[in-house]
Amino acid sequence: MSVLLVGSIGLDTLETPFGKKVDVLGGSGIHASVSCSFYSKVSLIGAAGEDFPQEHVDFLNSRGIDTAGLQRIKGKQTFRWDGYYEYDMNQAHTRDTKLNVLAEFKPRINGEQKKLPYVFLANLDPEIQLHAISELDSPKLIAADTMDFWISGKREALVEVVRKVDVMLINEGEIRQFMDTPNIPQAARKLIELGAKSIIVKKGEHGALYFSRDSFFALPSYPQEELKDPTGAGDSFAGGFIGYLAQTNDTSEQNIRKALVCGSVMASFNIEDFSLDRLKSLTHAEIVGRFNEFKGFTHFDEMNKITA
Amino acid sequence: MSVLLVGSIGLDTLETPFGKKVDVLGGSGIHASVSCSFYSKVSLIGAAGEDFPQEHVDFLNSRGIDTAGLQRIKGKQTFRWDGYYEYDMNQAHTRDTKLNVLAEFKPRINGEQKKLPYVFLANLDPEIQLHAISELDSPKLIAADTMDFWISGKREALVEVVRKVDVMLINEGEIRQFMDTPNIPQAARKLIELGAKSIIVKKGEHGALYFSRDSFFALPSYPQEELKDPTGAGDSFAGGFIGYLAQTNDTSEQNIRKALVCGSVMASFNIEDFSLDRLKSLTHAEIVGRFNEFKGFTHFDEMNKITA
Repeated sequence: MSVLLVGSIGLDTLETPFGKKVDVLGGSGIHASVSCSFYSKVSLIGAAGEDFPQEHVDFLNSRGIDTAGLQRIKGKQTFRWDGYYEYDMNQAHTRDTKLNVLAEFKPRINGEQKKLPYVFLANLDPEIQLHAISELDSPKLIAADTMDFWISGKREALVEVVRKVDVMLINEGEIRQFMDTPNIPQAARKLIELGAKSIIVKKGEHGALYFSRDSFFALPSYPQEELKDPTGAGDSFAGGFIGYLAQTNDTSEQNIRKALVCGSVMASFNIEDFSLDRLKSLTHAEIVGRFNEFKGFTHFDEMNKITA
Repeated sequence: MSVLLVGSIGLDTLETPFGKKVDVLGGSGIHASVSCSFYSKVSLIGAAGEDFPQEHVDFLNSRGIDTAGLQRIKGKQTFRWDGYYEYDMNQAHTRDTKLNVLAEFKPRINGEQKKLPYVFLANLDPEIQLHAISELDSPKLIAADTMDFWISGKREALVEVVRKVDVMLINEGEIRQFMDTPNIPQAARKLIELGAKSIIVKKGEHGALYFSRDSFFALPSYPQEELKDPTGAGDSFAGGFIGYLAQTNDTSEQNIRKALVCGSVMASFNIEDFSLDRLKSLTHAEIVGRFNEFKGFTHFDEMNKITA
């Protein structure tokens, strides 16, 4: 099965304790679609400016990504994010954001793409996400991501997105802010009461949690010592998640759990180098190997009978 | 098998968003030994003042805890901690600490107790922990806990403790501080290079990690919505951990993993009410039930073959 993926196309200027990179390939739609491409076909919907290098489009195509929905807007510049990470790389600091083409972006989804069964709406204005949803032809599963900016700025539209999608991805700080409670399980329950069908709470180095009305799953993160650039970790997580669901075409809870592991595997690779550099050399054997490592370091046996 | 447990005996004055309690039973040795008593026999070594209510000693004895090593010091007062938690209960704030009898505490371990095979040294001055270790008669396993205060104030003695014990318990902020690195897996590797045999990193709501020279285990925490008083969570964790090891008398890595789950189970119950109130009504059936819940919410199946 194939994935329809709507997200931002960006050129990032990044600084981490391991170096500085200027105008490298980035954006939520890019990180998510490249990650997804290891599992399934992807049609990427997004907009770039006339300054967007052709080599990046060639790279996407080399990964089998359908870029028919990637608009190149004449006379406009590509979305840019300029940020840095200090010693503790859990927190991104923004120096500058230039929306450029994103300021007027409307997803253009063609007839074939509207019928794709798995959909991921990466972080974007929730009104654009709602517009994309309104264009779809009864997909099997929609997942969406968001960020703090929309929680405070477009709360009503975001609540509508939460109600319309099957899986809402959100990070731990954001769900606390959104539901105004410091306790994550309580915040997740509140979001479900507000109409969410299921929620993935991304906690970076602390792993991820999955909540639905009647189930819960918790996954630690990979013990990553080779962290060079955390940018796009959440997007590559989402790409691996939706890609695995599409490849297996199975939305049972047991398969959603495995899809979460695949998401974590992809995020753990993505942060090992700047931009998407690590994914350029990644192999299926490495993915399977790391999935099995997750299985190994999370497993424990049944409890012995206690008698004390 | 039985456990020798050295720790503080305290009277806590606590304030959380759920209420205030004055001079209630507390201290690292108390939380740890009561938790441990659900799994094995415990001999508690500690000191209290003449103001320490007899009802607390009766409660310890009712749990089968050997209090022969609990010194009651005439003319002195019991250790007191006065603290509070704000809206976000992950962080304890200290209003006042009175060491009282702890200022001159020397563990008195009798001949029978020196031979006990499992030992837990709860958070105390590392010089007292070293003294206790020097008294022991070749135990099978020693675990120890510490806190930020000793990392900055008695670093050398603490490094000696780390080298001498089999399992060092430490929380995530403390290991970052101790090893001066924000990345926990890197910090754990450094502590192992410094001589630690194995390390448990306690992360509160984010679970716990286990590191040894050649293995790694990660466990998420229980999705606790009924959090009333986090005081003693780490100590009850340690008590369940050492108690399960003692009961099963098996220090294999697979059993250490199960002991970590037992520790997490005990911590998750302990925080449901003030002081040790929740443990007063806790049953073995509840412990087994929650262990099985951990098994349920952490399990995932093998990965399907990917072909994309």
